[in-house]
This record gives sequence, C-alpha cells and structure tokens, in this order.
Amino acid sequence: MSIDAELRARAAKVIPGGMYGHLNAVLHGETYPQFFVRAEGARQWDADGREFIDLMCSWGPMIVGHRNPVVEEAAAAQQARGDCLNGPGPIMVELAELLVEVIPAADWAMFSKNGTDATTQALMVARAATGRTKVLVAHGAYHGADPWCTPGLSGVTPNQRADNVEFTYNDLASAEAAAAVGDVAAILVTPFKHDSFEDQAFAEAEFARGVRALADRLGAALVIDEVRAGWRLDLRGSWEGFGVRPDLSAWSKAMANGHPIAAVTGVDALRGPAQTLYSTGSFWFSASAMAAAKATIEILRDTGGVALMERAGDRLRAGLAAQAAAHGFVVNQTGPVQIPWLSFEGDETLARGVAWAAACLAEGVYLHPWHNWFLSTAHTDDEIDRALQRTDAAFAKLRSAV
Amino acid sequence: MSIDAELRARAAKVIPGGMYGHLNAVLHGETYPQFFVRAEGARQWDADGREFIDLMCSWGPMIVGHRNPVVEEAAAAQQARGDCLNGPGPIMVELAELLVEVIPAADWAMFSKNGTDATTQALMVARAATGRTKVLVAHGAYHGADPWCTPGLSGVTPNQRADNVEFTYNDLASAEAAAAVGDVAAILVTPFKHDSFEDQAFAEAEFARGVRALADRLGAALVIDEVRAGWRLDLRGSWEGFGVRPDLSAWSKAMANGHPIAAVTGVDALRGPAQTLYSTGSFWFSASAMAAAKATIEILRDTGGVALMERAGDRLRAGLAAQAAAHGFVVNQTGPVQIPWLSFEGDETLARGVAWAAACLAEGVYLHPWHNWFLSTAHTDDEIDRALQRTDAAFAKLRSAV
Repeated sequence: MSIDAELRARAAKVIPGGMYGHLNAVLHGETYPQFFVRAEGARQWDADGREFIDLMCSWGPMIVGHRNPVVEEAAAAQQARGDCLNGPGPIMVELAELLVEVIPAADWAMFSKNGTDATTQALMVARAATGRTKVLVAHGAYHGADPWCTPGLSGVTPNQRADNVEFTYNDLASAEAAAAVGDVAAILVTPFKHDSFEDQAFAEAEFARGVRALADRLGAALVIDEVRAGWRLDLRGSWEGFGVRPDLSAWSKAMANGHPIAAVTGVDALRGPAQTLYSTGSFWFSASAMAAAKATIEILRDTGGVALMERAGDRLRAGLAAQAAAHGFVVNQTGPVQIPWLSFEGDETLARGVAWAAACLAEGVYLHPWHNWFLSTAHTDDEIDRALQRTDAAFAKLRSAV
Repeated sequence: MSIDAELRARAAKVIPGGMYGHLNAVLHGETYPQFFVRAEGARQWDADGREFIDLMCSWGPMIVGHRNPVVEEAAAAQQARGDCLNGPGPIMVELAELLVEVIPAADWAMFSKNGTDATTQALMVARAATGRTKVLVAHGAYHGADPWCTPGLSGVTPNQRADNVEFTYNDLASAEAAAAVGDVAAILVTPFKHDSFEDQAFAEAEFARGVRALADRLGAALVIDEVRAGWRLDLRGSWEGFGVRPDLSAWSKAMANGHPIAAVTGVDALRGPAQTLYSTGSFWFSASAMAAAKATIEILRDTGGVALMERAGDRLRAGLAAQAAAHGFVVNQTGPVQIPWLSFEGDETLARGVAWAAACLAEGVYLHPWHNWFLSTAHTDDEIDRALQRTDAAFAKLRSAV
C-alpha cells in the first residue's frame, strides 16, 4: 500500500469523504496523489516521494516558484518579530502603498485571507456606496465558495443567491438585459472566462468596455475578480490593456506566493463607503503574509515576471501543439499562455483529456484535466522542455491506447 | 511626531479610514497605538518601542505565548518543506485525528482560514443535512463578519439576513418562541455571552441543556461557535461540563497560536451531509498553520493549559478586585477568568472604563475597554503580578482624576 493510500484511508475516518474542495483528489480516482510533502521551484513531491513538474502551481498561488528564497526570507523575518499582534505591522501600510503604486485603479486597499473574502467585501463596498442590492454575475463564473457564489448548491438557501442576477460572459446585450432588474449595485466579472470543464475564452474588448459603460450608466460599481488571473496577466490590472479600469478589484491567490492573503483595491470615490463596513477577521492583519506579498509583487515588478511567464507559456503551448499534431490529435489550447488549458477536439465527456492528464501524471507532469493550469517564473526554458519531454510520452501513450 | 502617528498618516492615504475592523485603533483616539512590531511571551511592543504586558493576546489567537518556540518550530519546519501545495500534507490527517481524539463531539473535521468560514460552513452542513434554511441566533452575539452575521449592516442586503431568527441568550423560552418560525436548520450559540460593550454572562445549565433538547425536538443541528472561547475553557468543548455536546462546532482564533486556521468539527450523523458541500479556499489546505495547530493543541493538552490560564485569571481577578476596592471603585468582573472583562458599576457610557483602560495602557498594560480580554499560558504569576502593579497605578490615577 502506498503512503498516499494509507493517508487516504486514515483521512476517510476523520475528514468527510476523505477530502473536500478543489484539492480533493478523490474526484480523479486513485491516479492522482492526494497528499504532498515538498516543493521547490517548479517541482512538487507527493507523499510517496514521486517528483512532478508542477503545471498547477497549487491551483494558482505559487507564482515566483515554490520556496522562493526572497519571499520566504521576508515572511520568516517578519514572523520572527511578530505576525498576529494587537495591531497590524508597518508592513500593512507598505503593502497598501505598493498596491496603490502598481495598480492604476487602486487608491486604497483592504486586506483579508480568502479570495472569497475579497469578492464578498468588494460587493459590500459597492452596496454601501449605492444603497442597492443586486449584483450582475456571469453564469458559470467562479467567484469563491461562500453560499452566495459557490458552484455547489448543497447547504445554500435561496435567499443567499437572491441578489445575484446572471448574464452571459462576453455577451454585452445579456448584461444589459440583466440590468433591467434594477437596483444594481455592481457588475462582477472575471478578466477572462476561466470556467472549469470547458475551453477558456478571452474577454472581448467590446464586452470589457461595454460593461464599464453599463456600470457607469447604472451608477453601479464595476468589480473585476482578479483572484485567479491577477498578477499573471498585467500587474496593473488585467483589463488595463483594454483601457478599462474597474471601481473595485478582488485579489488573492498568487499575491504572496502561497502565503494566505487577499485584498480589495478601489478607487477614491469608494473610499468613504468602504470605511463604513464592518468587515474583519482574526488573521486579516497578520504581518507575515503581508511581508510575503510585498516581496512577491516587488519580484514580479522588478524582474518582468509577467513576461517570464508568457515566455514559458508560449514555449509550452508551441511544444504541446507540435506534439499533438505529431501524434495525430486535434487539441484546443485556450486562455492566456501563462494560465493555459488544453482540451481535445470533440472530447465532450473529457474522457480523452482525463486519460492524457493521467498519462502526464504518470510521466511526472502534474496538470489538470478540467481546470486551467498556472505557470510561474520558476518555469524556465529548461523546466518547460523537461515537461514537454514528458507530455510527449503521454501523447504517445494515448495514441497507442486509442 | 511618533512613529505610530507617521504610520497612521500614511495609512490614511491608502487604507479607508486609516484602518478597519476589530484592530482599528482609530476608535480609541490617539491613546492606543495602531501599529505593533514585536511580541514575546506575554509582551508586545508597538511601533514606537513601547512595551506592554498583553492582556488581549491579539484579540484571542495567542494562547501559549507569543513566539512560542515549539509552535514556531513546527510551523517553520513544515514551511521549509512546503506549505501551499497541490494537495494537503500528511499533517492535515494528523490534525483531524487530534481534534477527533480531543473533542468528544468530533467525529470529523474540515479546515478553513477564518472563524467566519467555520461558522458559515457549519450552517451549510446543517442546511445540507436538514434541507431547511433558518438559523436561530442570539441577539447581539458575534459570529463573524460575513454579511449574514456582521454586526455592522453597511453593505449588507436584507436577503443576506433573512434566514436568521433571533432569540435572547440564556432565555430558553425565547429560543422556543423563535423556533415557531419553522424550517429551522440550526441553533447557533456561543459557549457564553461575550457580546462587546456589556458585562459577560455564563450560559446557564438549563439554557445549554434546553437548546440541546430543542434542537433534538426540531431535528435541527446544535452548533456551538467556539471561535472566541474555544481552547481556553475546556479542550473537549466548552459545554462539556454541562454534559451538552453539539452536533457541530466552529473553531479558530487560538487554535494555532496566531497562525491562520479555522475548523468545523461534527458528529458522525453529519459526515454525509458535510461531504455534499462545495466549500473551499486557496489556502485552506496549507500545511504550516496545520502544523502550528497540532503543536498548540498538544501543548495545551500536555501541560494542562486551561488550568494554567485559570490560575492566571484567578490571580488577575483577585488582584483587580482588591485594587478596585482599595481605590474605592465598584467594579464588575465577568466571564471566565481566562477570558475576563472588567466594567465599572453604573458606567453606562463606558467613559470610566475607557479612562481606566487608557491609564492602564499608559502604565504598560494593553487591555480593552469594551471587548473581553484574553489570557494565555505565558501569563505566569510574575507577569500577572507585574500587570497588577501597573493596573494599581491606573486605578490610582483614575481616583485622583475623579
């Protein structure tokens, strides 16, 4: 029995279903390891000592490489002085100043722990500002796992979803139609369409500019949920390239290279309303994760981190495209190259994708069959090339199986 | 200008109102320091280097002393291997096993980051189990800062509170009357009444047993919110002394001595429903805080931590009582001695309490004029005696001022 299997058997006794949430490997059967023990750079090791080139980056949080020495030193130095104190450390001011400096649409910042804290808090600010209740959200978009937004409806009451009004991503007319409900406090939107189980899609410029104009027309806040995409596409904000600036943004995941933190940033006009909230948490002011965040964002800024990830993503995408063609598969590679996903043409049940992902795993590449992947600045040319050697073997295995 | 004042001036530009939430010292005027830089044992230092004996324990999280070496070593060792990975570490199983071992009403555990995550998740489990929507909550009780429970209503919609039905703490008849609304999924209750701005009150045994019986009669879940009281009153669960076991408990704050973690524990009958939730977070599986939690709970268990805190609390309460009497003040000391609070008789505006707390602060004791305090196992006899020397000076100052 593998160590992973032993741990799963123990977990089954003390954790409902043996595991829960997005890291639940039970969904993958026994192919995927559930438990991990170590990481370094672009590699992770499971409980049985198997090494993987990591193309998931812990589902997003890792962005400048596992065990990044600069980030870890910043966090450890702060931890050694104090983390959870009777007030924040000076680092809270420094981090807020950094966000305001880096993000043009940020005049202020508030910190919390979960991405869901940030999306929830952003909507509270929008509601406080407008005195309205409704939020327009794209059907199928992931904004967290609180009852108001979790994709699973078990344990959720109708009242908890009653303020959501859905539209279709990239369909401006549907957003305008949804707004007819009135009482709209906010339009909440992800920078691109990164729903699970389907190909990713970029936001169309017309859509991005259209929801900005719609929010303005309604007197509602445009909230960009940067939790998944943030820090990988454009440090200034993911829609900066469209010339579209949100009123509020929600940040988390990669913000501190795995240390737990989230943030809401907002424009000056919403500073007063933000001040009226009672929104807090026992660990929201803790200093270590803030030190890690500052170090992470400075590294990304000073080393051109986005360009590094794009380079890695371009190399991976080109390599996978060539391999798929060489092995006779038609694949769709969608989304930004640094937040990539690959699906097989016509693979509606995802069965082929699942088989290929399992083959990649067996070869030592950790990626996901129905959720987008993530790259980091630790994905050097060498690491991508090694990953491609392994994915090539996986394509070959898949070819011989079909 | 003090360093604290300089930091406040900078914060005012990049954080709404200069600060937010429960650590917002703006509410105290300029008397209280906003920013802290260091802690050790039962002491904290503010940004200007002023040392305080800490009777707040960072509003609860610190329970075995700031910078506890065993806890910090466990967390750092895990951090050095990996924290936020593609799956949890073995430590997640070990921690869940420890909770199941220590807490009689726990057959399983799920982990998250905030106390609010845990109370929210517990209600999701109760709703998933019962298919019902309403939750009975005590008027004025604090269960977190999500829209459904935050004490501030700014940015909150009516729908977000529509599933709450209020009763009066320690008034069983009021809970029974509230239950008449029907569709009751859960009764959510704190182990004792620790509302801010008023004297604390123990749960009456009849009330505790009564809400247990009421939940049984309704087929609803009894949920104890242990976020504030947990780990200080009884490691087995705060109502174990009443012979009352909940169906679900929410834990956080002191669980990992300041490292960010929360948990829901539950009985076997709710394991299946818990398994149906989609409830997750980017950092909920991170290993370092779990290692800190295991170390913290083991220290508390193996050193008789609760008794140590009771000893400190008894000493503090007796000392404060003698000092108040000697200086001619009538005070009320309420709540458990290890989660104490002191108010002045007839001080309805809390003005005298605020003045005394400010005097304590000036003498080098950090405590709070309208929120309960917390003690830790680092509050040795010596530390309590030193604190008492300072509180005596504060009483003297208050006497000469009135």
